[in-house]
Amino acid sequence: MPHIDVGNDEYGIRSLLTYRPETARPMGMLAEVLMRGPGTLTHGERELIAAYVSARNECSYCTLSHAASASVRLPGGEALVDQVLAGPQSAPITPKLAALLLIAGAVQQSGKAVREQDVAAAREAGATDLEIHDTVLIAAAFCLFNRYVDGLATTLPPDPAVYLASAQRNIDQGYIATLDQPAASQQAE
Amino acid sequence: MPHIDVGNDEYGIRSLLTYRPETARPMGMLAEVLMRGPGTLTHGERELIAAYVSARNECSYCTLSHAASASVRLPGGEALVDQVLAGPQSAPITPKLAALLLIAGAVQQSGKAVREQDVAAAREAGATDLEIHDTVLIAAAFCLFNRYVDGLATTLPPDPAVYLASAQRNIDQGYIATLDQPAASQQAE
Repeated sequence: MPHIDVGNDEYGIRSLLTYRPETARPMGMLAEVLMRGPGTLTHGERELIAAYVSARNECSYCTLSHAASASVRLPGGEALVDQVLAGPQSAPITPKLAALLLIAGAVQQSGKAVREQDVAAAREAGATDLEIHDTVLIAAAFCLFNRYVDGLATTLPPDPAVYLASAQRNIDQGYIATLDQPAASQQAE
Repeated sequence: MPHIDVGNDEYGIRSLLTYRPETARPMGMLAEVLMRGPGTLTHGERELIAAYVSARNECSYCTLSHAASASVRLPGGEALVDQVLAGPQSAPITPKLAALLLIAGAVQQSGKAVREQDVAAAREAGATDLEIHDTVLIAAAFCLFNRYVDGLATTLPPDPAVYLASAQRNIDQGYIATLDQPAASQQAE
């Protein structure tokens, strides 16, 4: 049961976005730019970074949501996502993505944990400044979202199909449009 | 020196907001709603929560910025802010604010660290659901901002007067208007 009365029966972050639309809107806009805006990281790579950070923060709702999104988008599917979450350095991903995930993992601990040599390694593997920036900001943003979801003890969906339905909706319509729509729980039923 | 070439000589988060305006706008909007929007927590209390979380994340730029803002806004001034940062439970603040700072400190560690009894204690001290929600989200948001500022190794202002000038500007004009203006460094000169 959530720590506060959210006044709706949605799950995870959606229950909080519905509870407080004034803060939902800027967070949706931030997610939209970072996860779906123009950029040279693929949408699947961005979702994978989000899932990886969420797993390290032990946030089940965000991990399962973004692992589902990454699985749908990446050619390696669920098997690849599972491998990355278990340990990105031995997963069959590009050296650039491995280097960016190392930076994301550092950010999850602390901003100060990002070392100059980690950034140099990412650059050597072909990462641009904007890709490094966006990796740090995606990782930092999920340190917010994970804490928001778990800090208020939001409810997990009883049916895991909700995550895939929600992932597909984010792919089709994005992170802002879905703010104004019925809950994933209702759409999956 | 920042990990990436930000292409400007601003300090702290301002250098990143200038580098990437697409993500700056939603983050400015989120800060504006949380730190200055309608609500029953005073602006000084919100700035104190921000400074406290930033101090626990050892983010110098954010700690000094928001400690300056809290000092200007709270009747107890700098002395009170210093006491709270050293240990809120022995500082001369209301039981409600002490309980909310305990929750914010838990969020800084992990969303899962917020205990039911912490929330119950805050409620008993007079905190509303919305105040508990906003405390969790302010704390979570500064876990983002702190990691963003330090994860990209942004530059600290050489002159501490910059923090006070920047605090005064945020008080006068808010967190969005200042995105479009000259840097605090230039205004303080």
